[in-house]
Amino acid sequence: MDLLEKALKLHEEWQGKIETVPKCAVESREDLAIAYTPGVAEPCKVIAEDPKEAYTYTGKANTIAVISDGSAVLGLGNIGALAALPVMEGKCVLFKTFGDVNAVPIVIETQDTEELIKTIANIAPAYGGINLEDISAPRCFEVENRLKEMLNIPVFHDDQHGTAIVVLSAMINCLRLTGRKKEDCRIVVNGSGSAGIAITKLLLRYGFVDVTICDSKGMIHKDNEGMNPAKVEIAQITNPAGRKGSLADAFVGADIFIGVSAPGVVTPEMIKTMRPDPIIFAMANPVPEIMPDLAKEAGARIVGTGRSDFPNQVNNVIAFPGIFKGALEGRAPQITEEMKLAAAEAIASLVSDEELSEEFVMPQPFDPRVADAVASAVKEHINR
Amino acid sequence: MDLLEKALKLHEEWQGKIETVPKCAVESREDLAIAYTPGVAEPCKVIAEDPKEAYTYTGKANTIAVISDGSAVLGLGNIGALAALPVMEGKCVLFKTFGDVNAVPIVIETQDTEELIKTIANIAPAYGGINLEDISAPRCFEVENRLKEMLNIPVFHDDQHGTAIVVLSAMINCLRLTGRKKEDCRIVVNGSGSAGIAITKLLLRYGFVDVTICDSKGMIHKDNEGMNPAKVEIAQITNPAGRKGSLADAFVGADIFIGVSAPGVVTPEMIKTMRPDPIIFAMANPVPEIMPDLAKEAGARIVGTGRSDFPNQVNNVIAFPGIFKGALEGRAPQITEEMKLAAAEAIASLVSDEELSEEFVMPQPFDPRVADAVASAVKEHINR
Repeated sequence: MDLLEKALKLHEEWQGKIETVPKCAVESREDLAIAYTPGVAEPCKVIAEDPKEAYTYTGKANTIAVISDGSAVLGLGNIGALAALPVMEGKCVLFKTFGDVNAVPIVIETQDTEELIKTIANIAPAYGGINLEDISAPRCFEVENRLKEMLNIPVFHDDQHGTAIVVLSAMINCLRLTGRKKEDCRIVVNGSGSAGIAITKLLLRYGFVDVTICDSKGMIHKDNEGMNPAKVEIAQITNPAGRKGSLADAFVGADIFIGVSAPGVVTPEMIKTMRPDPIIFAMANPVPEIMPDLAKEAGARIVGTGRSDFPNQVNNVIAFPGIFKGALEGRAPQITEEMKLAAAEAIASLVSDEELSEEFVMPQPFDPRVADAVASAVKEHINR
Repeated sequence: MDLLEKALKLHEEWQGKIETVPKCAVESREDLAIAYTPGVAEPCKVIAEDPKEAYTYTGKANTIAVISDGSAVLGLGNIGALAALPVMEGKCVLFKTFGDVNAVPIVIETQDTEELIKTIANIAPAYGGINLEDISAPRCFEVENRLKEMLNIPVFHDDQHGTAIVVLSAMINCLRLTGRKKEDCRIVVNGSGSAGIAITKLLLRYGFVDVTICDSKGMIHKDNEGMNPAKVEIAQITNPAGRKGSLADAFVGADIFIGVSAPGVVTPEMIKTMRPDPIIFAMANPVPEIMPDLAKEAGARIVGTGRSDFPNQVNNVIAFPGIFKGALEGRAPQITEEMKLAAAEAIASLVSDEELSEEFVMPQPFDPRVADAVASAVKEHINR
């Protein structure tokens, strides 16, 4: 049986990947009177007086919601709320397994942006944070930004920021390994969806200065017409040389390629036009923009993908459990750019000078130090 | 330390009464590839093809949401969404402990009826059923009825129907014990909120014919003015003799009193005007309409309350775990009147002729047979 068949069979056996388990036994009348009526009225009254006490007397302090509308699920696209549920359950498993954070999967049966925002805001009180997942761009930007304004708990669209943090951590170690300076690198990002935009912003925030982002029509330039607001915004801060042209044109003279786009769109010829020792992160899933062996043959020094069967897997699980663990433990009102940068640096620093190599620029997802290192870094950067 | 202090202290220790626990271990790259990407795409694709498959491949089949807007919490009133969370968590503990049903607490930050309905409908896909809780009357009727129309999963307002089922089970055994026939009983229900209306309807459905419901102004009569729609409706099917007057007037010649109203509103004198061997269920919490010893002194033969420190405690936990267990196992599209009647009869039948006495007309909440007996009865009455 191959992996995909096995996955289907095991999902049938599990019939749901998480369960709700009581932390208190109810085995006697007194137990019942304490966990339920009349005893439960006591914490209710305290919270009614002071809402902050919910962090003391309920699960809010260590519970997040993993929420999707199913509009952009993995490589599957808009499969709707219910069909997205296995992914949300899986994410909840990872939050608990790696970050010891309780996580509840919620799928929302509307793709109207306003209604989605309102629904999420309405159900927010029970949670210490909200992880948005698999919401299509550009709606995801509006949804996240509005919820951040409305709520005083962290709201984090993992497809954007989790990916951006892990990519940045890889870039930090690529600089370390190749001796480049961030100010000198020319970076091409292919893909202007949620991940591409977020990666670009975080790279700029970190201190990279020359980033050009491409969509299916080629390099995004501030003179391009018909762009959505997210692209208009990103066009203002990218492509400093004001170049126009195709993805192939963008490759010429670049140091780093970061692909969050489509299978096979990068050719060996493109890589050959890059500066020496080029760095290629081809993260289209399951089939990368270019296969690692082809990229290496074309001269790439470091190659990363989104796949677990090649070196340098960009896997969000390196970031999100620790991000929320730290944010919840520090009771952060939101996850800031500083926290994301600190998380990326913490991830990068877990790779020692001895370990660092072309085949190893990021810690493994199963490295038990990762979540705590990320959580500590995040906590140190909470602004109050 | 008294019980209430202990309850507060333990809630602080628990910091949330349930946690989300993975059913699958993620300890290797292969585990990760199965529970998350790329393996998780397989069940997603199957569900996208056929939504019913969510019952096979996700937790939907055995997970319910316990939902409140915090508008009518226990005896506390409208304390809002967040302050209601400890109650919802407690309820989820009971669902899992007694019914082996996964239950997720959700509190909703709106008391606008339309928005509440829309929010609940939007988040419904992940759940096999919805238990509504502590929503104020008469809004609760609209919320439940509309959601039942919109969704193809059971929607059950426990404050109404759980209470009604347990009260009916008690009444069935009171008839057994006192040799009365349901056709001959005159019943007074005091309280026209969610519980009072639902109890009245279920008693009538069972075959009681003479039920009079009272609100704070006295007997509800179809000529009364200014009644909300729920009262207008109930007035059509109750008070067959067309009597008018106070609660005290209603008591005269009655066989059974059922109180879901306010502390101390029933006096010994009222009980003395009832027919011989009167039955008093005084369920105002924590202080009943009349204390059991007073009621007994005034001639009551059987007395029940909502309290665990007196005999015959009407406790919804006798009903709701088994109701949902049966509905989920049988994949009922809704919980019908027949299922409620069957549940009440199943509960009543667990008290043997030998056990049945004035002090024991209902099984104990901790009787391990209860949930399965209720679930079986419910499953037998699922209509397709």
